[in-house]
Amino acid sequence: MKKLEHIGIAVKNMTESHLLFEKLLGVTAYKSEEVLSESVFTTFFKTDSTKIELLAATQPESAIAKFIEKKGEGIHHIAFEVENLETEIIRLKKEGFIFVDEIPKKGADNKRIVFLHPKNSNGVLIELCEEIK
Amino acid sequence: MKKLEHIGIAVKNMTESHLLFEKLLGVTAYKSEEVLSESVFTTFFKTDSTKIELLAATQPESAIAKFIEKKGEGIHHIAFEVENLETEIIRLKKEGFIFVDEIPKKGADNKRIVFLHPKNSNGVLIELCEEIK
Repeated sequence: MKKLEHIGIAVKNMTESHLLFEKLLGVTAYKSEEVLSESVFTTFFKTDSTKIELLAATQPESAIAKFIEKKGEGIHHIAFEVENLETEIIRLKKEGFIFVDEIPKKGADNKRIVFLHPKNSNGVLIELCEEIK
Repeated sequence: MKKLEHIGIAVKNMTESHLLFEKLLGVTAYKSEEVLSESVFTTFFKTDSTKIELLAATQPESAIAKFIEKKGEGIHHIAFEVENLETEIIRLKKEGFIFVDEIPKKGADNKRIVFLHPKNSNGVLIELCEEIK
């Protein structure tokens, strides 16, 4: 894995959480973007290392809405950047990891993404992402 | 905030999870350490940016044991490194954040640490840590 690219945090109210994380991190957001395929609105903050991605549902059937309903607001996933998504999918499948869906999708912030199934990784939802060149 | 220093993941079985994260990250752990004050055994992995800390309870009354009982295994906290813990505590209190305990404790990996209360930060347990010089 190349590096921890971002942490995704599920929030109910983007306006409030946007302000809250500005105060917490002491920086302003560098990007806000709707991801139609995932029914989420996202806001990104840069720290010196890893990015913070806030995620709010735009539809009741969004995975983020379901997550909040079940577990409440909080950390939803962590994302590792990889050089080549297909190579890493093959490596991890050989190691016994399972994917939610092994066909990469277009994610936020100019990335192709896949998710590992949390049941096989200690309850942690892990995203692999590759920058679209 | 200086940077995202590590992500803490609560696990039931350290031996199994240690192996699992070695396979996942493709690196070996660089440190294992018991933190007596927190009744936890920790294992650290380095990625290019942020560290991953696995946490297993060593006593039933450990916060990690209680977390797993309530929420299951998964991400327990995220930790930001700061230059000066006391300055950052004052800044965040002025911004309305609440601390679990604002007296710094000795944490793992040679750090002084405090925790922000998750009820005031979107359900995310946030640690602030300062390297002990």
